[in-house]
Order: sequence, then structure tokens, then C-alpha cells
Amino acid sequence: MVAPETSAASAAVGGEENISYVDVAIIGAGPAGCMALDVLSRYSDRGLTVRCFDKRTAKLDNGQADGLNSRTLEIFESLGFIEKVQKEGSPMSEINFWNPDPETGRLLRTAKIPDTIPGLSRFQQTILHQARVETHLLEDASDHSQGKIAPERCMLPETLEFDQAASKDTQAYPITLKVRHLSDEESNPTAYTGENGGTRSGLFRSSLLSAAEEEALYKKSDENQIETVKARYLIGCDGAHSWTRRQLGIKMIGDQTNFVWGVLDMIPLTNFPDIRMRCAVHSANAGSVMVIPQPKGLVRLYIQLPIQVKPGEYLDRSQITPDSILSTARKILHPYTLETEHIEWYTGYHIGQRMTESFGRANRIFLAGDACHTHSPKAGQGMNTSMQDTWNLCWKLGSVLTGTAEPNLLETYATEREVVARTLIDFDTQFSRLFSGKPASDTDGEDGVDLKQFKDVFAKSHYFSAGMSIRYGDSLVVGSALSRQHLAPKLPVGERFFSAQVVNQASATADQLTTRIPFTGAWRILVFAGDVAQPAVMERLRRLNVYLDGPESVVSKYTPPDGKRWDVVDVITVHCAERTSLELYDFPQPSIFHPHNYDRIYVDGPSHYHGDGKAYEAYGISKEEGAIVVVRPDQCETLLVFISNVGLIVGLEDTALLDDYFSRFMRPDPQGGYPGSLVKTVSPPDWTQVGTQEVAKTLAVPAVNGAISASTHH
Amino acid sequence: MVAPETSAASAAVGGEENISYVDVAIIGAGPAGCMALDVLSRYSDRGLTVRCFDKRTAKLDNGQADGLNSRTLEIFESLGFIEKVQKEGSPMSEINFWNPDPETGRLLRTAKIPDTIPGLSRFQQTILHQARVETHLLEDASDHSQGKIAPERCMLPETLEFDQAASKDTQAYPITLKVRHLSDEESNPTAYTGENGGTRSGLFRSSLLSAAEEEALYKKSDENQIETVKARYLIGCDGAHSWTRRQLGIKMIGDQTNFVWGVLDMIPLTNFPDIRMRCAVHSANAGSVMVIPQPKGLVRLYIQLPIQVKPGEYLDRSQITPDSILSTARKILHPYTLETEHIEWYTGYHIGQRMTESFGRANRIFLAGDACHTHSPKAGQGMNTSMQDTWNLCWKLGSVLTGTAEPNLLETYATEREVVARTLIDFDTQFSRLFSGKPASDTDGEDGVDLKQFKDVFAKSHYFSAGMSIRYGDSLVVGSALSRQHLAPKLPVGERFFSAQVVNQASATADQLTTRIPFTGAWRILVFAGDVAQPAVMERLRRLNVYLDGPESVVSKYTPPDGKRWDVVDVITVHCAERTSLELYDFPQPSIFHPHNYDRIYVDGPSHYHGDGKAYEAYGISKEEGAIVVVRPDQCETLLVFISNVGLIVGLEDTALLDDYFSRFMRPDPQGGYPGSLVKTVSPPDWTQVGTQEVAKTLAVPAVNGAISASTHH
Repeated sequence: MVAPETSAASAAVGGEENISYVDVAIIGAGPAGCMALDVLSRYSDRGLTVRCFDKRTAKLDNGQADGLNSRTLEIFESLGFIEKVQKEGSPMSEINFWNPDPETGRLLRTAKIPDTIPGLSRFQQTILHQARVETHLLEDASDHSQGKIAPERCMLPETLEFDQAASKDTQAYPITLKVRHLSDEESNPTAYTGENGGTRSGLFRSSLLSAAEEEALYKKSDENQIETVKARYLIGCDGAHSWTRRQLGIKMIGDQTNFVWGVLDMIPLTNFPDIRMRCAVHSANAGSVMVIPQPKGLVRLYIQLPIQVKPGEYLDRSQITPDSILSTARKILHPYTLETEHIEWYTGYHIGQRMTESFGRANRIFLAGDACHTHSPKAGQGMNTSMQDTWNLCWKLGSVLTGTAEPNLLETYATEREVVARTLIDFDTQFSRLFSGKPASDTDGEDGVDLKQFKDVFAKSHYFSAGMSIRYGDSLVVGSALSRQHLAPKLPVGERFFSAQVVNQASATADQLTTRIPFTGAWRILVFAGDVAQPAVMERLRRLNVYLDGPESVVSKYTPPDGKRWDVVDVITVHCAERTSLELYDFPQPSIFHPHNYDRIYVDGPSHYHGDGKAYEAYGISKEEGAIVVVRPDQCETLLVFISNVGLIVGLEDTALLDDYFSRFMRPDPQGGYPGSLVKTVSPPDWTQVGTQEVAKTLAVPAVNGAISASTHH
Repeated sequence: MVAPETSAASAAVGGEENISYVDVAIIGAGPAGCMALDVLSRYSDRGLTVRCFDKRTAKLDNGQADGLNSRTLEIFESLGFIEKVQKEGSPMSEINFWNPDPETGRLLRTAKIPDTIPGLSRFQQTILHQARVETHLLEDASDHSQGKIAPERCMLPETLEFDQAASKDTQAYPITLKVRHLSDEESNPTAYTGENGGTRSGLFRSSLLSAAEEEALYKKSDENQIETVKARYLIGCDGAHSWTRRQLGIKMIGDQTNFVWGVLDMIPLTNFPDIRMRCAVHSANAGSVMVIPQPKGLVRLYIQLPIQVKPGEYLDRSQITPDSILSTARKILHPYTLETEHIEWYTGYHIGQRMTESFGRANRIFLAGDACHTHSPKAGQGMNTSMQDTWNLCWKLGSVLTGTAEPNLLETYATEREVVARTLIDFDTQFSRLFSGKPASDTDGEDGVDLKQFKDVFAKSHYFSAGMSIRYGDSLVVGSALSRQHLAPKLPVGERFFSAQVVNQASATADQLTTRIPFTGAWRILVFAGDVAQPAVMERLRRLNVYLDGPESVVSKYTPPDGKRWDVVDVITVHCAERTSLELYDFPQPSIFHPHNYDRIYVDGPSHYHGDGKAYEAYGISKEEGAIVVVRPDQCETLLVFISNVGLIVGLEDTALLDDYFSRFMRPDPQGGYPGSLVKTVSPPDWTQVGTQEVAKTLAVPAVNGAISASTHH
């Protein structure tokens, strides 16, 4: 849906030598960059082009971030590879708190709590190394682009020019990027290689390095080819020392503390009994340890080091070695033993919380991930928030670039994500202080940390750290003010839509609603139609179908007629009548029951093998009133309205609210859209020729034990 | 564990030219052959060699079998790739019965029943094309053998010699196989290629061809290289016309009917409302149809054709075309419409039930799969039974060839599987008669099929067709007679061990017991220890540990000391005390709690995220008495005994039953085994240095709504 003259220009060599054109350029192939590639890959068959440049020679194979919160796992489900992550990752189940005995100062376990609040999400938080997460995102991006989309490595960005005046022309390429092709050796500094018998150091990527030190790691030579890339949009996913951010002169604002922590990924040999639990250990005098069990027998320890650095200063990094970190960990865990079979990776970091003063420029250049927010890693939020940044941004970019949305949609990236970043920074400031502080005791002054308060903050933060507390405010694209929130009180507009089990009307198979609405770039209109066995309720649905079929509906108007009718706005019906009381052909065609498409009508009711999902109850939707829930491509619920002109509403038809909402940012299809009249419907069965005897609903099967058995048992 | 002098000879070129040696040769890379390769791949790191020859040029990419029963899915879980199959496959949920209205003869839906009995297995039966199933097995075999194990295609077996006298020498290679290397063209007959605009025919593989006709499909030439392969064991997985079986002069015994059925895999355009359900449709006069919904919008129809063939005769196959089959289907489904967008594949078959008179020769040559049993495909048992044949055989072969078991173990393959084959043949005879017969009506004679009886047979067969009715009889390797069955009445010895959820003591993570015991070739001793918080019960477990640690225990005696101590017999404990009332270091080392190994102790109790598995209740095990359950590598439960010398037993210690049982077929390790004394145990924590305050068990976390929230919602 990119206009033909421009899509032809994309990626082709322009008038000047060595200049190429691309819709989206990405700097950095970490979690934020990989997520951006995967989301944008879903638009590649509609002509969107994307390139991603990473200065490093290859992705890292160990260390770095490792925590996936529940919200991230829901996003992976939406992207379609959750089962691979669940298979490889190590689920977290319980947090154990260890604190000094007030009398003797000896360590003892003082509390056990679940890792997150049970029921918050279908997915239990999981530990998996960043490298594996990046691999899954990149494989998925490759699968969805016939292998076209992959990061280009050994590519060091050199200069960035931005023609802000040109950026008003939607067809323009206002961004000019020069990128240096490094050799493998130049982009693979010695800092990368293993030390201490196979143990890799992560220090060279840590907050203990200045931007200048980090830049100096990469060599340059006169032989390097310099490529010029002209881009419509640019995303800087290039980390805490973001080159993109510095080119734009955007500052990070915030504070550092005096605290330095070390990290070890290792195979422990210990008699500490909770080594396979997530643990928060506060010793009386030796500092704190956080224990994170990883897959393959590895365990990560975050260890508070007996080193202090002033804010803004840089440490002598030679103090931080695997041995020095391990020896500190031993003191904290005493009297439990701690030896190791193998140390896989180590690093250190200086605790601070900083946030960018701006998320980009003119809705053409965006910053995402660590380029926007840096903090301590122990709460496991960095990788998650980074991926969720580009998850938020890239469907908007994809929609604008493929012509279904107006560029004003892009404004909402910064407004939505800066609130999240601010909340994260505030949380981490509080959490880090409690974790790094010395436990309060009678002999201490007032500075000691109240360990009961620590546990309470930890427990209360679950909702936040699982990624579940994000509620985007009313905006162009979040219709809180337009919505009739009382129709589904458990689905607050602006939050992520959560799953409930429903049953497919056509196949009787139980399914999670979120697996029915994977990420495709489409909006979803979920029609909770109510008890359609009642003629008046079915009539209400028929009237909605008439609206949706018509040329001015939000489905018809925004959908190009050369694709599927559900490519842009996908309508799914969930009723709550008894499944067997209705036939597929009782439902109106084509907007509600699309001909020969058997994934459109679902039932809230019992299934044969997985119980009853009670979806209406889960969402707080009344079986009488029903509701229409509009869900964004990124699963954010953005509008709640009545089903078309239901009798209870005086005056307004709620389809007008749908029209209003979408018209704020959607672009009508230039070919006139895809009205229902273009769909060939199926003739219902010739009822006069069909048997009329009532169907026996013998759903129950008695348990039969060995009725026909291969037994030779005596 | 193959003796070094022989493992060196394996696969190497011998004294004669062009002769190679292999432990196991397999003819045919269909479902039985691919399962054999995957199971045997788990022994390749212990030196076992295997080759598989298939005369065809490449695996088929559509058509053929498509039904996976619950037991097969459990096996795929054990092999470790179930989630891939679940993601790709189409689950079956409900069967709908359509029959003629007794008065008008018009079709009507008369009953709906669940696809199988809910609760029979964790896995819902699933439809996935044979080609995809073979691919998953082969990818898994490759992953487990560093790419070494893969079928060799375009390889036509030429001669088979068997030196039965030599077969008594376990080190001998009594089988000599000559194999012809065909060219790609020779092994890719025209019958394979698409017809009718992309529709592939399966007729050339069907029961409508004689063995001679099928053989004539493959060309030979003087240029073909002939390779001589000497093998210790041979498995004939070469289908209904098995070349291997014919070389051995083994006959198929059984009957054919007059009935001919057609099969179509297609994307239907229909107003039949149950096209995404499994359906059994009996028309009044036009015959029967079975509907099987497949993934990717495809549907399989099994269609009774208006053609009759006498048993032993062969049909003029030109009568069977996609159009002729479709036109018959239309008549049966009338008045519902049936058009198609695309026909993917079609075939026909002549209904008959035959079974081999022998499953092999001298425990050196084995027949498996369709080479042993042929029947009609509608009950979806062929591919399942074939894979389950080699699932049964190959762990026995692997154990014998790697030196942990005596060759007498191999006798049990035929005794166990011929009962299954017989049951399948009997079931199919009954099922096919009911499916192919004309419905009874007042105007018919006595030959008509009572459709109520049909539904009842269908419903009662669930237990059988899900693969759950198999109970191997008492034998060398099934210790029914030795067992104290009353200890776990819901775990009949000889049946497959089913899963229940338990909680890992070390990580608090809920897990299915079967995921803890994947197929590795190891036996499992599941110790249901009871309430170990009671000192007497823990003492009982300590005494069992003393036995297991000792040099004469079944763990110590059979395990080579150069591997892991759980490589041959793996001990897993499931207790039912409160999880938080015990520490890991309360359990005896090393046979019960193996040092630094955190997947050995489980709890039957509540989990944070997945409820309470109630495993003891599911198995019928008393929390007081407990039980030891011995599970074979293929998940068959084979022995049930008391935990060591419990007071209730007069006389015998039950560990003696363990000793007796294993001594019947296991081979003691020639190096003297791996007693517990060789394991370095972990010193428990220094309890005098550990805090003594009682742990607060604050497991419950209050639901916190937006305690720290990113909300900007007004």
C-alpha cells in the first residue's frame, strides 16, 4: 500500500552514487531493535522496507538481560512464538526473602511469596538470555519477510542529517544517514573475547564505561566503505550511550547513586537451599544478593559490591573480576557455601536512574529502549520495557507507511511511552534504595532499610513489574472519553486486552481469545453479542451487520479491496447463547459470519476438554447488554461501545462512535474501500430439503474402561 | 557401550569391497521407520549405528495418514517436540452424527459427542499430515545425533540373506542386505507427479495396487551401484506390500470386503454446517461420508464409492478420479452444497483387514507398522499403531545394543505388539462394517446398520482409538505378577503411565510428571514417599536410599560409572508433605537427592499458578503407604512395590522384588556399576550457624491493582 512510485524507489540506488532509500532505518539490533524488525516484518508483503544497522560483529551469546515479564510473554504469544520461549526458558514461581536474624545477625528465610500475583496473566514470568530472545525475534522477522529482514552487522553509524522542513512531506526521505562498513575485526574488539577460562565479560557494555570509552572500542580505517542511506523514519535503539540521541543533542536527565553491583552467571555448587528460587538476600553487614535461576542449570547472582563511586565518576574496572564478585557473594551468603563449576559471564554496574528529555524529533526520528531510560537491572524491566517501546511504535509506523493511518498517529508513541519510562524510573529509584541499603537494626541509625517495607514494596510492585499496570491515557488513539466504560468494567480502556477462553462455534474447539487475534497489523472489533438465541438480540446483531456491510463502515472504508476484508479491521463475534442451539448459517453474512471462514464466531460457554472460560464474567460484560470492544493491533483496548442502536441508548447510535474514533487517525482507502457487497455470500441450506427432527444433544460420553481392550492382563 | 572392537567396525568398510557394517538397518522411512530413527538416535552418543533405506526420492508432502491419537501425542511429549505438533495441527473436539430422517430420508444431525472421553489424556486428538509428522521425527533424530541420523533415499532393497545360526552370537552381523542406489528419476515414478491442476494422486500407494504393480513403479538400470550392508538387526517398516516380509516368506492373513472408498483432501466451499467437525454421515441411499477437518482450511472426506470389488481382485483404477469421488460426496451430503476451491490430494482403497502371521525372525529381524497390519484408514489408527510399534521395539534394541539389557528383552516386542495388532484388526472389522453398511429402515431387510448401534460402537471405541486401552500382559518385562497392584489401583501394571501435576521442591514450579521423565532410554523409579514430614516416613525413605546407594541396587549395578548415575535407572521422589515444611537438605543423598541436581524431589500439593495436581489421588496411591512405581523407557508402568521393608509386609523386603524384576533382562555393568559411594555428596548447611527463627510462610499475595501504576487515565 506504499504508493507505487515510492515503493519502487525504496532500497533501490538513487541518482547519486552509493545512496539507497529505505522506509525505516534502525540503529542497533538489541531487544528494541529486534522487536522493531519483527513487528515491521508483518508489513513487508505490503511493500514496507526496513534496514537495521548494528556496529557489533555478531549478537552476543550469553549474559546481558534475562527476565521476561508476563506482558512481554503475551506479546510473544501475539507474535506467534511463545511456545519456543516457554520451552527454553525457566519459569519463575516463588520469591524467597532472606534477612538477618535480629538477635544473632544470622541469615534466615523470613518470607515466601509467589513471583507475581496469580491470575494476573496466563504467562508465568520466565528467565531466558537476551541472546535467545533476540534470536527468536529475528527468526520470526525472517519467516515473515521471506528472509529479507535481518540486521546488518559491522555497520557503524557515522553521521546523521535531518531535514526537518522536508519532514512535512509524507513522501519525503528527510533523514540522511552515513554508515561505515567495518571489517569483522574492527567491530569485534578484544573486550568481547572470553577471559578467565571461558568466562565472558560484560563490562565493556556496562554503565561503568563512558560513551567515549565505548566508542573507542571500534576501530576505523581508510578502507572502510561509507554508505549513504536515505530514510523516511529512523529508530534509535542504540542503548544507554545512544549515538542517535547524541546526534540529536537530546540529554539524559537523572541521578546516579554511590552503589556498584556485580553480576555473575554461573553453575553454582552450594548448599544454599533456595538456589533455584528467585531470592532477595540482605545480610547484616556484607551487603545484598539477588538470586535468579536461569535455564540449563545456570544461576544469576546480583551482588552488591563493597565499592562506592560518586555520581558522574567512573570506576577503576580492574577491581571487578569474577573472583572479587564471587568472594563478596560468599560473605553475604555465609554460612551457606558457594563454589562454582563454571562462570559463564560477569559484569558490574553503577546504579543510577536517567531518562531522556525527549523521545525523538518531529515524529520522524524516534528513540526507544535504553536510549530513553536507564536504571538498575535487578527488577528485570530493561529488556521488557525496551521491547514494549518498539512494540508500541512499530505498528503505528507500519500503518502509516502502508497507507492505512495518518502520520498524526505517530505522536502517540512519545506520549504513551514517556509515562511508562517515568514510572519505571521512579519504581527503580525506590526499589534500588531498598535493595542496596543496609538492613535497619537496633544498633543502626535511621538510615537502615526496614525489611518488612522492602518485602511490601516488592509484593506491591508485582502488578507493575509484570507489565500489567500500563494504562495509556485518553488520546487520539485511546478512546477513554468516547467509551462507555461501564459495559466492561474489567476491561479499562487504555490497558492491554487480556485473554479468556472461548469456544469456536464451527469446530467446538476451545481457544484463547488472544490466540485468535495474533499480531497482523489489523485492528479488532470484538462483538460481545449477548444471547443471540433471543430473537431481539440476534436482530441487534443483524443491524450491526448491516452497518458493517455498508460502504461507510469502519471495516469497509479503510480496507483496500485487493486483500482480505479483515486485513485492516477484523470483526470477531463472541456470543453467549448455547452453542448447540444455533447454526453458523443463523448468523448474518458477510461481516459477522464471513463465508467459508470458520474463525469468526465464538461462544462463551463450556468446552469438552478445557472447562468453561466464562469470558463475559472475566470481562465484566453483561450477557443482556453485550458490548463492542475495539482492540488496537498491539492489544491495547481503546474503545468500548454498545452494539448498534440498542434500545437502552437515547439518541446516538454507537456505530457513530466507532466512525468518530477511527476517523481521528485512519486514512480511507483511496480505491473506495471494501464494502460487504463485494463479498460473495454463501446460500444457506435449502431448509425445505433438510430433515426437521430435533437434534439429540448427546454431548456427554460415559467413561468407558477398556470396552474394546487389547488387554492380556490376567 | 558397544564393545570397542565392534563399534569400530560399525559403519566402517570391512574386508570385502563395498561392504559396510551397521547395528540396525531399517527398510522404509514412513511413520514406523522415522519413529525408529528418532528413538535410536538417543543411543547414538553411546556408539549405536543405524541406517534407513527408502526407495522413494523424497518424502511425500501431502495426503496419506493425518490422525494423531492421544497416546501418540503423549509419545511426542516424551520425545520433546509435542508443542510443535500442537501448534501446527488441528485439534479434534466433537463428533457429529448425521443420519437419514426415518420418515423423509433427509439428512439430519442426530447426535454430538466429544471426540474422545474428556480426561483420558492431557492431549486432544489432532490432525496433522503424515509428511509433517515424519519431518518432526526426523528433525528430532537429527538433533539428537548431531546430524548423523537421516534416511537414505532412492535406495531400493535388492536381496536379504539371514544367517540364523550366526544370530546366537550377539556380536555377529547375521543379516546381509544388498541395496540398489537408484537415480532420482528412477525412484520418482510418474505416478508421483501432480494431476488435475496440482491435485496429487495417492492411488499408487494404495491398497488398490498389487505388490507387483507397486514394484514395477521403480526402474532399474545396469549403472546402479549395489551396496552390501551387514547388519546386526533389521526392521522392515516397508508398508503393506513389505519387501522385507516377502523375503522372509511371511504371509498376511485376513479378509477383504467388497467395499471401495475414496479420499479427498480439499478446501471445500459448502453450506454443510459441520464442515469443521469430525462427522460420520450416513445417507439413506447414497452411501457414507466421514469428515475430518485438517489444518490450513483443508478438509478430508472419506467417501464410500458406488463400486464393489471382490476380495482378492484389483479394480480398474481409472474409475477413481477427484471428480468421481466429489460427485459421490455431493449425493451423500445432499441437500447441502459441496464445491471446492482446490483439491490437494485424492486416493482410493479397498477395505480389508489383514495381519502378519509373524512379527519377524529370531529376534534379529522385525516387522513393524503396515508390514504387520493393514486395515481401513477411517478410524485413524494406521499411522499411530505403526509409530507405536517401533516406539515399543527400539528402546529394547537400544538397550541391548548399548549393553544394558540382555537380548531376551527383544522377545517381548512380538508378544506385546501382536495383541495390539489383533485388537486393531478386530475393531476395524466391526467399525468398517457399520460404516459401509446401508442404514436400517423399515423397508430394508435385516442387513441394514442400526445407526444407534453405530454411534454406541463409535463412543465405546474412544478408549481404544485414543490409544489408551493397551495393557501389555505379564511377561519378562511386565511385572504384573510381581506387583502389589493395590498400592496404585489407578495405575494398572502394563498400561502407559499417565501424567499428573507435581511441584518441584527446589524451585516451587508446577510441572507435569511426564515432562520430568522424557524419553532418554532410562528406566524410572518413581518413589511416592508419602508424608515425609513424619519422622517414620522419612526414615523409610532413608532406608530405601541406603539400598539404592549400595553396590547391589538396581541403580548401582546396571549403571556404567562413566556417565551420569541416572542414565540407566533414574530415581525421582514425589512426597506429599507440605512443601515449605521441608528443606532439600532434609532428604538423603545421593540416591534420593542427588547433589546439585534440582529435578529429583517433587511434591504433590498446591502450586502458585496451576492449582493442585492431586497426584496421589489421581494414581490411587495412599498417602500413608506410598508406593514405588517402575516405569519403562517407553512409559509403560511395569512394577508396583512397597517402599523398602515397610512394616506392613511380612517377610520379604520389596527391594528384593526390584532386584528380581530387573535381573530378568538387565545386564550388570561389566565395570562393577556405579554405587552411591562414588558420588560426592554436599555437606548440609552448618545448622549451628543458621538463623533459628521460624520462617514466616507468607505465601499469599494480595491482589494489588495499580499500586505503582503508569496510568494517566482521567
